[in-house]
Order: sequence, then C-alpha cells, then structure tokens
Amino acid sequence: MNYIKKRWVWILSLVMVMALVFVTPAFAQDGTPPSDEVVDLTLGINILWMIVGGFLVFFMQAGFALVETGFTRNKNVAHTMMMNMMVFCIGAVGYWLVGFAFQFGAVNAAFPAVSTVGAVGGEWAHSPITLGDWSGLLATPLIRFGQYGFLGGSGFLLGGLGANAGVLAFFLFQMVFMDTAATIPTGSMAERLKFVGFVFMSLWVSMIIYPIAGGWVWGGGWLQNLGRAAGLGNGAVDFAGSGVVHLIGGAIALAGAIVIGPRIGKFNKDGSANTIPGHNLSLGILGTIILFFGWFGFNPGSSLGFVGAFRNLAVIAAINTLMAGAAGGVSAMAYAWLVGPTKKPDPALSVNGILAGLVAITAPCAFVDTWAAVVIGLVSGVIVCWATALLDKLKIDDPVGAVPVHLFNGAWGVLAVGIFANGNPDTAAWNGVESAVTGLLYGGTTQILAQLAEVTSIFAFVFGLSYVFFKVLAAFKVLRVSREVELQGLDISEMGAVGYPVDWEPQDVDAPEVSKPGFSAHPATTD
Amino acid sequence: MNYIKKRWVWILSLVMVMALVFVTPAFAQDGTPPSDEVVDLTLGINILWMIVGGFLVFFMQAGFALVETGFTRNKNVAHTMMMNMMVFCIGAVGYWLVGFAFQFGAVNAAFPAVSTVGAVGGEWAHSPITLGDWSGLLATPLIRFGQYGFLGGSGFLLGGLGANAGVLAFFLFQMVFMDTAATIPTGSMAERLKFVGFVFMSLWVSMIIYPIAGGWVWGGGWLQNLGRAAGLGNGAVDFAGSGVVHLIGGAIALAGAIVIGPRIGKFNKDGSANTIPGHNLSLGILGTIILFFGWFGFNPGSSLGFVGAFRNLAVIAAINTLMAGAAGGVSAMAYAWLVGPTKKPDPALSVNGILAGLVAITAPCAFVDTWAAVVIGLVSGVIVCWATALLDKLKIDDPVGAVPVHLFNGAWGVLAVGIFANGNPDTAAWNGVESAVTGLLYGGTTQILAQLAEVTSIFAFVFGLSYVFFKVLAAFKVLRVSREVELQGLDISEMGAVGYPVDWEPQDVDAPEVSKPGFSAHPATTD
Amino acid sequence: MNYIKKRWVWILSLVMVMALVFVTPAFAQDGTPPSDEVVDLTLGINILWMIVGGFLVFFMQAGFALVETGFTRNKNVAHTMMMNMMVFCIGAVGYWLVGFAFQFGAVNAAFPAVSTVGAVGGEWAHSPITLGDWSGLLATPLIRFGQYGFLGGSGFLLGGLGANAGVLAFFLFQMVFMDTAATIPTGSMAERLKFVGFVFMSLWVSMIIYPIAGGWVWGGGWLQNLGRAAGLGNGAVDFAGSGVVHLIGGAIALAGAIVIGPRIGKFNKDGSANTIPGHNLSLGILGTIILFFGWFGFNPGSSLGFVGAFRNLAVIAAINTLMAGAAGGVSAMAYAWLVGPTKKPDPALSVNGILAGLVAITAPCAFVDTWAAVVIGLVSGVIVCWATALLDKLKIDDPVGAVPVHLFNGAWGVLAVGIFANGNPDTAAWNGVESAVTGLLYGGTTQILAQLAEVTSIFAFVFGLSYVFFKVLAAFKVLRVSREVELQGLDISEMGAVGYPVDWEPQDVDAPEVSKPGFSAHPATTD
Repeated sequence: MNYIKKRWVWILSLVMVMALVFVTPAFAQDGTPPSDEVVDLTLGINILWMIVGGFLVFFMQAGFALVETGFTRNKNVAHTMMMNMMVFCIGAVGYWLVGFAFQFGAVNAAFPAVSTVGAVGGEWAHSPITLGDWSGLLATPLIRFGQYGFLGGSGFLLGGLGANAGVLAFFLFQMVFMDTAATIPTGSMAERLKFVGFVFMSLWVSMIIYPIAGGWVWGGGWLQNLGRAAGLGNGAVDFAGSGVVHLIGGAIALAGAIVIGPRIGKFNKDGSANTIPGHNLSLGILGTIILFFGWFGFNPGSSLGFVGAFRNLAVIAAINTLMAGAAGGVSAMAYAWLVGPTKKPDPALSVNGILAGLVAITAPCAFVDTWAAVVIGLVSGVIVCWATALLDKLKIDDPVGAVPVHLFNGAWGVLAVGIFANGNPDTAAWNGVESAVTGLLYGGTTQILAQLAEVTSIFAFVFGLSYVFFKVLAAFKVLRVSREVELQGLDISEMGAVGYPVDWEPQDVDAPEVSKPGFSAHPATTD
Repeated sequence: MNYIKKRWVWILSLVMVMALVFVTPAFAQDGTPPSDEVVDLTLGINILWMIVGGFLVFFMQAGFALVETGFTRNKNVAHTMMMNMMVFCIGAVGYWLVGFAFQFGAVNAAFPAVSTVGAVGGEWAHSPITLGDWSGLLATPLIRFGQYGFLGGSGFLLGGLGANAGVLAFFLFQMVFMDTAATIPTGSMAERLKFVGFVFMSLWVSMIIYPIAGGWVWGGGWLQNLGRAAGLGNGAVDFAGSGVVHLIGGAIALAGAIVIGPRIGKFNKDGSANTIPGHNLSLGILGTIILFFGWFGFNPGSSLGFVGAFRNLAVIAAINTLMAGAAGGVSAMAYAWLVGPTKKPDPALSVNGILAGLVAITAPCAFVDTWAAVVIGLVSGVIVCWATALLDKLKIDDPVGAVPVHLFNGAWGVLAVGIFANGNPDTAAWNGVESAVTGLLYGGTTQILAQLAEVTSIFAFVFGLSYVFFKVLAAFKVLRVSREVELQGLDISEMGAVGYPVDWEPQDVDAPEVSKPGFSAHPATTD
Repeated sequence: MNYIKKRWVWILSLVMVMALVFVTPAFAQDGTPPSDEVVDLTLGINILWMIVGGFLVFFMQAGFALVETGFTRNKNVAHTMMMNMMVFCIGAVGYWLVGFAFQFGAVNAAFPAVSTVGAVGGEWAHSPITLGDWSGLLATPLIRFGQYGFLGGSGFLLGGLGANAGVLAFFLFQMVFMDTAATIPTGSMAERLKFVGFVFMSLWVSMIIYPIAGGWVWGGGWLQNLGRAAGLGNGAVDFAGSGVVHLIGGAIALAGAIVIGPRIGKFNKDGSANTIPGHNLSLGILGTIILFFGWFGFNPGSSLGFVGAFRNLAVIAAINTLMAGAAGGVSAMAYAWLVGPTKKPDPALSVNGILAGLVAITAPCAFVDTWAAVVIGLVSGVIVCWATALLDKLKIDDPVGAVPVHLFNGAWGVLAVGIFANGNPDTAAWNGVESAVTGLLYGGTTQILAQLAEVTSIFAFVFGLSYVFFKVLAAFKVLRVSREVELQGLDISEMGAVGYPVDWEPQDVDAPEVSKPGFSAHPATTD
C-alpha cells in the first residue's frame, strides 16, 4: 500500500486515527487497537464515500450550466454554456498548479497549542483523520502569524505527496468545491462578460482568492483556530461551505456585477427595473434538480467518512439537506404566490428558493435538528425574495440571482450554525476544541462570534480584492463586451457559434421537399 | 455512536442482526459473534449503499419532469416542469410531518405470532435489520386489527427517533419513493390541472393515501402479514414497489384522469381519439435515460444492504433491472414497428416500453432469474401498447401514459413475483416466513394469492378514495382550469411565466442589429 | 451466500484472493488469513464500488445521446435520440445472449504458463480477484492457439454461472462498456443511417465484433498474454479501455462513415468541406458534462475494487481522469482560439477536446503521474483538432467527430501507457507478469511493443471486418436512407415522429386565444 510510507509513522499515528474514527463508547471500551484489515476497510469506506460525493459535486457543474443558460437569453447561449463548461477545465489546472497548495499546504502545520483528541505529540494538526495518515505531508505554511495561519505553501502540482490515496481523493473533492465557487460569478456577469475576462476570472478564483480565504476555514487557518486560540466556540465551523464556497463565490459575483455594470436596458431612466426573462425554463428547472441531486454529495460527502460517528454526521447532513432545500422551495413559492411580485407560484423564484435553502443548510447541515433545517430553509426562501428586490433597488444587475442565492444565504447559513447547533456529542473535538459545536439556542454563547468573524472577514477580503481585480480587468478592456456585441448577443462575436442554429441545407441540390423545423407530421401516439 | 442507545439492547439484538446479515454457512459455522468493528463496518456499507440508492431515486425526479414536459405541449411547459419540481418540495414536508409516521410508525410493533428469524423474545418485528438496531423505535400502531396492522402512529416530524443513522437514512430512502408515487398523477392530469389542485394532490399523496397503503406492504401491515398470519406464501412480497409505488401512483393517476376529464379536443364526436404530440422529444428521451439510471438506485438499493446475502439480492436486482428495462424497450419498439399503430419504431411507445419493463421488474427484481426478467420485460412492452389503446377506447385521456406504464405494469410486476420467484434461499425468512419466496413455476402455490391480494386491495382502496378526493377538489373548483386557460395554455395564467420566452430586448435603444433566435452564423466546424 | 458453491474450492483459493487484495507489507507480514467477515466486507466494498461505477457508465448513454443529437440537425432529432436510447436496449439483449460469453467465457481458462501471484496450482487465471471466487466459472474457450486465447465459450445467457454476485456485477459493468463502444458509430453515421441498419449494427457490435476484440485484452486473450508468453512488458495493458472500448468503437465508426458516404452537401465539387452545424448547443454541452461525470465510473471503477492497493489505483485513476479531461478542453479551446479555424474559443472543438482527453487517459489513468495525465490531455486536445481537419481532407464525413475523438485518441491513449507508465509497485503482477507496468520514460522498453500490438491488431481486425459488414448491409439496401428521406430529414419517414412538434390545437373549437410558441408574457422576475 503506497500510503504507508514509513511503517513506524503509521504505527505511531494509528491510535490517533482510531481515536476519532471509533469515538463510540462501544469501541473505546475495548482498548485494543483495530487490526490492519479493519483500518484498511475503514479507509475504503471513508474514501469511497468522499470520492463518490466528489463525483456528485462535479455533476453540479451541469446544473449550474443549465440554470444560468436557461435563465439568460437565446442570443447568449453559446457564451453562457461555454463559461460553465470551461470554468471547470481552467479551474482544475489552476487549482492543481497552486490553488490546492495555497489552501491546504499548511493544513498539517503543527501549532504549539492546546493538546486535543487527534494530537500527535501534544500538538494539533488538521488533516482529515478519516482519510488515513498524512503525517508530514502538507505541513509548510507560506504565511503564518503565531497560531494564525494565512497561506499554505506545499503541494504545488501535487508534488511531494506521493500516491497517498487519501490526499489525492481529498484533492479531487476540494477541487470540485472550488469549481462551485468559481462558477457562481459567471451567473452575475452573464450576457456581457468578455470571454477572455472570464478566463482571467477563472484563474483568479482557482489560484488566488478562493484558496486563500478557503484555507482560513478548512486548511488549518486563522478562522478555524479562533476556538483553540481565542476561545470563540469551536472556531469558525462550516461543514460544507456556506461560507467557504457560497459566500466566497457570492462576494466575487457581487464585485463583478457592480464593476461590470447592468445589462443594457435592465434599468429604466426612472430607476425602475425591467424583468429580462431567460429563454428556457425546462433547462433551468432541470438544472435545479441536478443541483439538488449533486448537493447530496456536497453536504453529506463533507463528513469525509462513513464509519462510526462520521456516518451519523453524513446521514444527518443528508436529511437536513433534503428538508432545507424543500422548505426553501415551498417558502419562496408561497411568498411569490401570496405576497408578490407576481401573486403566482413563480418558477424563477421557486428555483432560487430551493437553491437558497440548499446554500443556507450547507454550513449547519451536520449540526442541527431536522426541525431547525426546515426553519433555516423557510427563512432562506424569504431572504432570496427580499434580496432579489433589494438588488433591483440598488441597481445591481445579477441576471440569475447569484448574489441573493449564494451571498445572502451563504451568510445566513454560516450564522445559523451559531444559532441552531445542537451540541451533538459526535461533533466534540471539532477544530481541536473539546466541547461539541453548540449554538445560541443550546447555550453556546461564543460560537456565533466565530461565525460572525467568518462572514465579515471573508466578505470583506474577497469582495474587496475582487473589486480591485475586476477594476483592473476593466482598465485593460477585457471585462465587458462592446455595446454592439451585447445587443447582438455575445455568441457570434465572442464564440463564433450560436446556441440553436437553423438547419443547414445544401444549396446546390434540387431538394424535393426540405423539412421545416417544427414541422409536425407526428401520426403516432405520444402516450 | 448515537444509535447505540442502550448497550444491553444492542448486545441482545446482535445475534438477531447477524443471523440475517451473515446467513452464509461459512460464517454461521463460526458461532462467535462478530466484533464491534465488524458490526460498524457492516452498517457503514449497508447504509452507504442504501443512501446512495436514495440519491439516485431522488434524481429520477428530473427524469419524470423531462418525460412529462417533453411529451406535453409548449404552452404548458412552465406548469408541467413546476409540478415536477414542487411535488418533491411539498411532498417532503408532508411526508416528514405525518406520512412517515403513518407508513412506518408501527413497523416495529411486535405481533404475538409465529417466532421467526429476526424475532426478539419470540415476537416479530420488521424494521430493516441491515440498518442497525431500531429496538423500541417506530413501534406504535394507531390502528391494528389483531395481527393485521393498518396505520402507524409514531415518528411524526421524526420525533422520538434520536439521531439513529439507520432510521434517518431509511426516512430519506422512503421519502424519495413516496415522491415517485406522488409525481405519477401529475402526468395523467397534465395540461389541465389547476396548480392549487396540484398542491392539494401532493399533500394527499404524501400525507395520507401513499403512507397508509404503502405501510400495508412495507410498514409491517396486514398485507405483509398474510404469510405469517394467514399462510399465503411469504405474504405480499414487493421488493422495490411495483405495487407500493407504481400501482399506488397509477391508481391515483387513473382516478385523477377520470375525474378531471380529457383535454379539449382529445376525443372526436365519433369517439375516435386524436394524438396530441408533445413538444420536445429530446427532453423526453433524456428523461427516460435518467429514469433508467435512477432505477438502479430504486431496485438494487431496496436490498437495504450490501453485506452478505443482501449483496446477492442487490446485484441480482441490478442485472434484472437492466435486462427487463431493455427487453421492455425492444418489445414495445418491435410491437409498434411490426403491429402498429405507426408501423415504425415509434419513439413514444419505445420510451413507455422501457419504463413499463422497469416498473414490472420492480417487485420481482431480486426474486427471479435473468431469463425471467427478460420475459417479464418483453411482456410489459406489449402490455403498455395494449393499455394505451385501451385507454383511448375508454375515452380516458392520460397525456403521458402514466396509467399504462405504472398501473398496468405495476400490477403485472406484483403478480410476476407469484409466478416467477425462484425460491432463492437468500430470500428465506422474508416477511417472517421461514421458506424462501417461491412462485407458481417453482411449486409455490399460495404466493400468487398474496400477490393478488396486494394488487386488488391496493387498487380498490387507493383508486376509490382518490376518486372521492378528486371529486371533492372538483366540487371546490380547484381541480381543472377554465376552458379559456386550457386553450391558451396554463403557463401564463397559472404560473405567470412561459417555458421559452423570446429574447427580451431594450425598447429605447438604437440597436445596431438585434439577433434573431435561430439565427445561424456558425462559421466553425461542429465536429 | 450463493457464490460459495464448494467450500473446499473457497478455502483453497482464499490465499490466492487475499494475496492480491492485501498486497501491502503491513498485511502480508501478519501471515494469518483474514477472517470470513473481513473477506465478506472486502467483497462488499469492492463490488459496491464497481457496480456504482457501472451505473455511472450507464448514465453516459444520456451524454452520448445529447452530444450526438445536439451536434446534428433538427430534422433528425427523433432518429438520433432513438438510436442512442435503443442501442442500449438492443445491445443488452445481444450481449446477454452471446457477447459476454464470447468476451469472457474463457477468462478463467488456465494456461500452462508462468506461475505468478494469483495462480491456482501453478497456473494462471484472470478473473478479477477483487470480486470473489470464480473458480471453475467462465473457463471454456471456443478458440485458443496454444497460450493465445481468441474466443470464449461459456456463460451464454449467463447460464451455468449461478447467482455469483461478483460475476453478475461484472457482467453489468462489462455490458455498459460494450454499450459505449456500440454507441460511438451512431455518431459517425448519423443523419443518414437507416434505422433497420442501425439495429443490425447494434447486434454486430454487441454480439460479435466487440466481444471478440475486447476479449483479447480483458478476457484472458492473446494480447493480454503477450507479456507472460512473449515477453512484451506486461502484455497489452488497457486499464479502462482506450483501446478496448474507444478504439473499437472508433474503428467501427470509421468503417461505417466510409461505407455509408458523406451527407448530401457536406463536400463541395472543389473538394472543400462545408460545416454543418448542429441544432442545439445547450444539449451538446450538457451531454459533455454528463459524459465527464460518467467517466468517473468508467475509469476509477475499472479498478474493480476499493480495498488495499486497488483503492490507490482507483483514486489515481480519478485524479488523472479529472486532469486529462480538463487539459484536453483547455488545449483544444486554446488551439481553436489561437490557431484556428475560427480564431475563437470554439464550443464544438472544446467539447471534443474534453472528450479526447478523457478517451486518451482511459488506458493509462492508473499507471501515470498527474503531470503525465496533464500532458496526455494537452496532446489529445491538439490531436482532435488535427484529426478533424484530416477527415475533411480525406472526404470522410463524421458529423459529431466520433473518429477524431475515439479512434485517434483511443490509439494515443493505448500508446501513452507504453510511454508514461511509471512503474507503480501497485501494478506489479498485472496480466500475470511480476514486474510493474513500466513505460519508455521509466526504462520499460518492451511495454510499448505490446501497446502497439493492441492498437494495430484491434484496428486492423475491427476496421476490416466492420468494413465488410457495412458493405453487406449496403448490398442489402439497409444501410443508407434515400436521397429524398435524407433531405427531408429522417424523422418523419424513419421514425414517424419529429423532434419538436408544434403544439397540436383542436380544430373544431372556437378558441378564444390560442397560445403561440415562444410567446412571452412573463411579467415576473427571472432572477
């Protein structure tokens, strides 16, 4: 087995690994370490669960592509679809080159601090203990202030990591999460973003801004350490990334939408906003269901394991994801139907209500009761309706509602941990703090402060730098297409292809009868 | 581990759990109970298998959405897609509130009856032994007649169940099955059902009618007990729900189609039927492939385990699902091509042939040989063609063929168990009867009676009550849209949105050249 | 457990099975055989991994359907979608009848040759040791020349195999791989192939040509034995089928495209080629993402196990699949943008670049470093651009680029193993050769010869016989539709249905206002 490089290290860390893998009383009482076979089977189940989750998250790219394209116009179909397909390709390369190293290159840097469960030699390291032994890997910070990590510095091009199955699978899993963040701004800047500007944006997200901010919460960074080092609950707790993925993506989306400006005609001279419908509701709703499906990889998969207590967390995450997404959809549909603006069960708002519920439950999914998941979802469905109206008032044009869904509900989800986390004992030792994750309703008074720190610091950092980044793109004239191209649609000029070409027909043949698109000669039953 | 609440209960029931988990001679011979680690790993594999299966079943919602929308008209796209997206959201909430409790709230009620494998203290309980210990949970019937359970009464809002990973994962799995049943009637009532009527229907299915009838077969109810208590084979045997899911859904669909009446223009004055083609075959066929894909979660996942004998059942179910679906498609295509009505390989009938084969194999998938799966599939492909013609004769308008696919082939699948079940020893102790599930062809003479009881009682109960339910909706004027709305299409009036809006363009700008939808300027290769 | 038929065989082969399942020093040092429970759990994890991979590969059929239909014309939508849906149904039946038996019916025929790890009684058998004991099953060759197997001869209709879960799951996995090969030629012959000719082609691929050639590499055949018997490296090494699936499919596609001839109007009298755009880029790109998603079952699933060293191979395969697909897309997009033909980031070439990268990494995915996967992907993106231009020059019309993607990059992938394979110790004993798989860059000088043998022999055999086969179809007038039908579109004449019918409206009613497709009355927000 490749991942057992040095047998002595393995033996040393076995107790550590097992301590959390089998935190149950039943097993703890035995006292004897599990056999090699049991360790191997445990790793098999844990890594299988996580990597299948990663595949599902990858598939969410199809959902984003369809939602964004379905809710934008015919004349920009090729451009919007291509952004969604290529953001993954470009991002994968960027993340492999430097992103992963920035985000997780110091995840195992041992801090001279509180000794907790999982500690080797009295120090704390964060690499997911469910995925096998990573001792000595990913332990080189580039920037660190005392106990507060800021930027990782090993694992560039996956170098120096060997063929450690746990680390490689973790890379794949993190890569598709980064991709989710990177695809969000393509929605808020759709129908006017230059394709070359999109390429730069993809590199910006995958190589720089996402890895840095994401590392603060998941890579052993300073937000994660606010519990151990500053006494704020368990530090910033974000199970699957309401903050890391969605708030980051949403903050970039907001900066982009502001800098690039609204689409021609979105706002009237009197300040009122026009509705610009998308071209294909079937694709938009198909994309929504695909996103919901993929979210079952996103949230439950973030347990990074399925043996022992990690299985409990995964299953709770699955149920809560289900209920919050459903509740968000019901809530937004009811709001639109009863309150407005259309007084009908509006499809577009229902779509965004579902997505809002899913975004909001992403951070708290493993920490809250089912009823709390329903409440979180119901609230998020209203938030998304309000935020959509708010953006119109602020004259910010966000064609697919990326900001209401991901920024507003990402923030709501991070804060919800600090309110609803129920102190489930399975979450003890989270981020190296011995107590379980506990929110306001259950007597945890400081967790909400760590959550507030995550929301404010990530938003300020990501929004601020991305605003500057987009200003630079604009200065170099690679951000927004010309007025002519925008009115004509970006497809012909930017992509050299349209979404739905009419049938090409040979010109020089004496065609007996050429078909017409849409011609209906269907004599058969359609049942 | 949360699900080990009382250690003594666990130890007591360990032998019970293992008795079926390891029914193989090899393991049985050891005599020693497996270690805690082995039990934990076993639960990990079993629950992982089931919950991934549940995710796949969830994704079937996308398939239903596309099949129904693809095979209905452009003017009702927003309405049909929205029904398919929201049925899940509304149903999830309804099932969480009361449906799960009605269906499974008494699954563990101990009946003073035959002592069998799996019995605790000489009594019988049904909770899936592959998913860990549920002792004491879900054991409160609301209605029971002697040994014949009728309605469960615990687990409302998942209350009182704790964080038992097995139970929670089971809830998710059952929830998506209910959703499948609930989405079927949206097909038979498409293009004329008021959206508010759809909302009531979703609640009716998720909270009332599906849980009651489904509990009879899966929740420890009276049909399931016909073997132990009345000597009819192994009682009603329905591996993944030809009866529970599809026959229930199909019976509701039939009642709905009759009460709501045919679409305007479907039947001519001379009694002949018009074919009303759908608007998008690409989406319809994509949906069919998605449904086939999801069915690999539906059927194999219903083994509720992947260790020991349960793996055998899961894999056999997978192969049979594959072959019956394929055979159904081949059979219906050949029938349409050779017999008619079109004398061509009709796409719509081929689609429904595949779905018919999948529905029919759902009950018997784990009990029959591969050749039998092929036969079942071939027959179902013909059944669906005949049933489609029959409905036309009866002047029942079912736009997407929900009744021929789900009702007729659901019934055929349930009966097929009684004919083809091969007495596989892995199915011994099914429903608490010691002998294996055995059909007519293998000498089991009473199994078919239990299957007939399932078909007739479920159909009569579900169709009858649903007929009344829809009549009530009609009386309150919330069932069918007005003639004007139906002719115009339901999208504008009911949903406030159309499926495929033409590109919105700014009115007050001097556009240099506005793109035309369908404009082809593609100069590039499409290879 | 059904698959333990004869206990003494099981005990005998247990050491064999475990020898490779636990090839790690840690376990090997113990010396004691694992317990029955550990064996069962190991099989559970391995088979679960493979069968979930099989489900993902099945879903690729949706991807092929969308790519092929999206990149062909409106007037052939029903025909192209139906081919993609029915190729699976027809192929499943054909493969079940004879294909599997031809391909794998002699996989366990013991050859009197080198004794290696995994040998029973000094002889070598190939059945996947990760999936349990297959002793005595699938061991009957129809044609064998000394050590060189040519054609299997047992397992027709899965007969004689019992309910061995490992074998049945393996059948499902192999069936969906065959389906991938069978669907490739429907792309190169799209828009002019008679549907009855397509049916014959499906049977040809599933029953004859794929099983024979595929068996040479995976079924214990002569290419696989070139290492043991002729000293060429580890024999032909093809982890997931760049050669077996894609080169076979691509060779059939090329033969078909040549025999059927170009579409009317594709080539001008001066020899230049016209671009015939497809009708729906959204579907084409959605299909591409679905294919990428399914490839995570295709490649990583081909480890056929997830315990011990097989997990390492699976995870490495996953990472490399990710990176090569992404690199192929980046490379083709950059090529089209910088070099041409459009000097824009062409969507169609980007799509085929991604697919080319995925095809090329399919054979080497488990044998190469990540950087090599990136290189292989970058090269394949350029190959696909060149090959597309080459086909135009040769006047071969391949509407969706099946030949550039699958044939050219399939060959490139097979050869890449001989160049980049890094001698990972986990690949020792591959194909019964004790040394690890090692390419030119790592000092393995003969592996490339085995790879060349795979490419040339498969191409010559498959292309040659398929050419004859299509000529026969042409002679019987069942290959190509008439000129009239082709110009009108195949949908009406061949399928009796069109892809996108206009809304049917009742003729005899006084409609108040009939909706118009594309009518936009959307008053709501689309955010």
